[in-house]
Amino acid sequence: MRYFDLIYCLEGLVILAKEKKMVEEITSMSEDFAQWYTDIIKKAELCSYSGVRGCMVIQPYGYAIWENIQKIMDKRFKETGVQNVSMPMFIPESLLQREKDHVEGFAPEVAWVTHGGNEELPERLCVRPTSETLFCDHYSNVIRSYRDLPKLYNQWCSVVRWEKTTRPFLRSTEFLWQEGHTAHATQAEAEERTRMMLNIYADICEKELAIPVIKGQKTEREKFAGATETFTIESMMHDGKALQSGTSHNFGDGFAKAFGIQYLDENNEQQYVHQTSWGVSTRIIGAIIMVHGDDAGLKLPPRIAPIQAVIIPIAMHKEGVLEKTAELYERLKKSFRVEFDDSDKSPGWKFSEYEMRGVPIRIEMGPKDIENNQVVLVNRVNREKTFVSLDNVETELQNLLDKIQQQMFDAALENRESKTSSAVTYDEFKNIIAEKGGFVKAMWCGDEECELKIKEDTTATSRCIPFEQEKLSDVCICCGKPAKHMVYWGKAY
Amino acid sequence: MRYFDLIYCLEGLVILAKEKKMVEEITSMSEDFAQWYTDIIKKAELCSYSGVRGCMVIQPYGYAIWENIQKIMDKRFKETGVQNVSMPMFIPESLLQREKDHVEGFAPEVAWVTHGGNEELPERLCVRPTSETLFCDHYSNVIRSYRDLPKLYNQWCSVVRWEKTTRPFLRSTEFLWQEGHTAHATQAEAEERTRMMLNIYADICEKELAIPVIKGQKTEREKFAGATETFTIESMMHDGKALQSGTSHNFGDGFAKAFGIQYLDENNEQQYVHQTSWGVSTRIIGAIIMVHGDDAGLKLPPRIAPIQAVIIPIAMHKEGVLEKTAELYERLKKSFRVEFDDSDKSPGWKFSEYEMRGVPIRIEMGPKDIENNQVVLVNRVNREKTFVSLDNVETELQNLLDKIQQQMFDAALENRESKTSSAVTYDEFKNIIAEKGGFVKAMWCGDEECELKIKEDTTATSRCIPFEQEKLSDVCICCGKPAKHMVYWGKAY
Repeated sequence: MRYFDLIYCLEGLVILAKEKKMVEEITSMSEDFAQWYTDIIKKAELCSYSGVRGCMVIQPYGYAIWENIQKIMDKRFKETGVQNVSMPMFIPESLLQREKDHVEGFAPEVAWVTHGGNEELPERLCVRPTSETLFCDHYSNVIRSYRDLPKLYNQWCSVVRWEKTTRPFLRSTEFLWQEGHTAHATQAEAEERTRMMLNIYADICEKELAIPVIKGQKTEREKFAGATETFTIESMMHDGKALQSGTSHNFGDGFAKAFGIQYLDENNEQQYVHQTSWGVSTRIIGAIIMVHGDDAGLKLPPRIAPIQAVIIPIAMHKEGVLEKTAELYERLKKSFRVEFDDSDKSPGWKFSEYEMRGVPIRIEMGPKDIENNQVVLVNRVNREKTFVSLDNVETELQNLLDKIQQQMFDAALENRESKTSSAVTYDEFKNIIAEKGGFVKAMWCGDEECELKIKEDTTATSRCIPFEQEKLSDVCICCGKPAKHMVYWGKAY
Repeated sequence: MRYFDLIYCLEGLVILAKEKKMVEEITSMSEDFAQWYTDIIKKAELCSYSGVRGCMVIQPYGYAIWENIQKIMDKRFKETGVQNVSMPMFIPESLLQREKDHVEGFAPEVAWVTHGGNEELPERLCVRPTSETLFCDHYSNVIRSYRDLPKLYNQWCSVVRWEKTTRPFLRSTEFLWQEGHTAHATQAEAEERTRMMLNIYADICEKELAIPVIKGQKTEREKFAGATETFTIESMMHDGKALQSGTSHNFGDGFAKAFGIQYLDENNEQQYVHQTSWGVSTRIIGAIIMVHGDDAGLKLPPRIAPIQAVIIPIAMHKEGVLEKTAELYERLKKSFRVEFDDSDKSPGWKFSEYEMRGVPIRIEMGPKDIENNQVVLVNRVNREKTFVSLDNVETELQNLLDKIQQQMFDAALENRESKTSSAVTYDEFKNIIAEKGGFVKAMWCGDEECELKIKEDTTATSRCIPFEQEKLSDVCICCGKPAKHMVYWGKAY
């Protein structure tokens, strides 16, 4: 046994010891899923609570994930002609009240500004819970003719909803999101845009975040306040709960009529515009954690991981190791989001730390590797080690990143499939929800009464009427009357 | 005269007519500078007022300018190790009150949230006017050891200050900005960071926005509430008023003591951190308008112009023109932010429109140009036309963009120089301020009393104590006592 083989061996022991310690600090998923979730967020420093009730501080690592998602989404939006704007964060009370359903949906959960400086305001302002009313107000000022259409606006901002109970990323008083708001000449165009944005969301979730989603329509009860139809993408978490991961709403001309948004068409006649809105929020970071994570910590999809690979020198005080690893870092950072940890912590500590932080690939390089002109790539998903030549490390690294991205999607899909059931009797339905959880596909008559009863009996809600329908039986799972739709049901975040 | 020469000639007449019309719609600078400013913002669709008092809607063209500035700044920040985060938008009243000077500076101008949903809050929350207190609160939770330092955080967000009178971009109730907040082990490091960020701001202003700036330090009276020193960059507008364009503050350990932000140093002793903050806001868009614009409209520096060049087909119904110009567009958009206007509006209308919108280069291409394998590049700054071969249009376009960037900086510098005076007697000083405006360099004793008297007498304020000092005389311009500094004075936005 050569000297550095011995070093390796000792370090291996240290690693095991440290890993055990690290694992112990994160509650295991099976023991307490909610605590596991909170532990990961805290240990990986994604976000922390602030001194303001229910408001988060999104820390650098968490924010970097959001920035990567933003970059991807923003590019996709702009490719379809969307332009970014910035609307005020305040909505005068009278403006919020302009559309009846909308104000009923949001007024109970907004924060009210009543004073500016030392003076009481003549009219209360709410901090935007969503900005339909502001966009409508603006559109009513700037849309005059068919030549002004379509308007395809989006904004990246934060919104506030006064939630009673909060959980980091999933439900907080203030959260970050993008909200797109478009105005079109025809209903057909608005419908097309609503579906287009849902498809973009689904595509980004699946290809970039490695999260498989069910696309479908929300029921009347679950749709957005003021929309004629709401489309959604729903994903499945490790604990069998569903998470609404993005929504796209068609407003028809309801808001246009409430706000007087009209245009002169080509025949010189006044017409109302047709509108849409669509949004994805920092909730999606919660989905990434709960779809991919394991007991060792986060697993981040390579496409959005702030650190795609971390270089860890082994036996770093040996001659040449620091130089060679530093050289590798300089080389790799030209093409990858790579980090180099030459701190004086032990390799074992570093292994666990970057695993916990969900870095897709760890690159080890020690004296033996230098001798062999190689590095070791370790896959975060399955801890598989690959020895690759230094000569083509870029290609190998990219290949492994692509492979991990696919492995993560496959694992998430498999998990969702294993957590998706069908039910044809109500007893069966209730049993599955109570014991197994996950998605339950079942037929529904379309009546809100049955939806409510199911919720009361099981706490499961209708997640969506999927675009891909199956006919499981002829009758509603709840009332036995003729069925209209197959619905995905489940408990949800 | 060939047929399309005739067309050219006719179009030329139309152009002149339309340009005249266009110019008439924008009030001339010399007639009414404030109205000129407002006209440009409205016509170029940079922003518009919303239904919320003093709050702006930043429209796509204005927001695209901000996005380009953001991209440049964000990259520069990150190169120095800065990380982005997201802090809450609310500050509990008790947290705002923690640092005495700070609360005195900001409390009179904040918006207060008193109700969440239907309930009155136990403690009022203000909407952040700036986030020192939030960062301090967070730092007091996460900083434990010298290993945690430095913390180099930044956030892109909006803040709210309840202003009595507002002007688009220059002073609005809500505005967008970035605020960097750092914590360091030593005072020397904090000082270095404060200067580093000021230098980055100055560099971006000069190189990217073509705005020359004076770097210096604010007087005690003008410094930020809670800072030990405030550095600033000051720029000169076309009307002779100064605009503070970015500030960088050194807090020493004042906030650290108020918020208890301590770390264990390498000798295991508790020490207070030293902090900085620094910010640039959408005000800078106001500076871009007022430093570069002319009576025909905006002039945007090529580096941040949302449209760097617009292709306008001439005699576009002639055979081949639309195809060739569309081809050129496909070719150029690979390397430039270029637009192609094939709408049915006349070339003359388009010429004026894109001039007004400040697009640096107009690319004309008509039948004669196609015949000659050339295009015409028209410089927005001086309307100079260059005929360039289609074969190397990319190189020529880039060269002209670079040239325009430099021409704009040179013109702005020349304008500032022509608006900068020195005074050695108080009468001279008052005369210049009253009649010529601009910057006046004059000696100052360092007493706030003189600063106040100068403001009362002239409405001019001390803009900064420039880093580059000159000795104009031995005595204070106001009181005649021994002078400590040469100061830039001026009326300011």
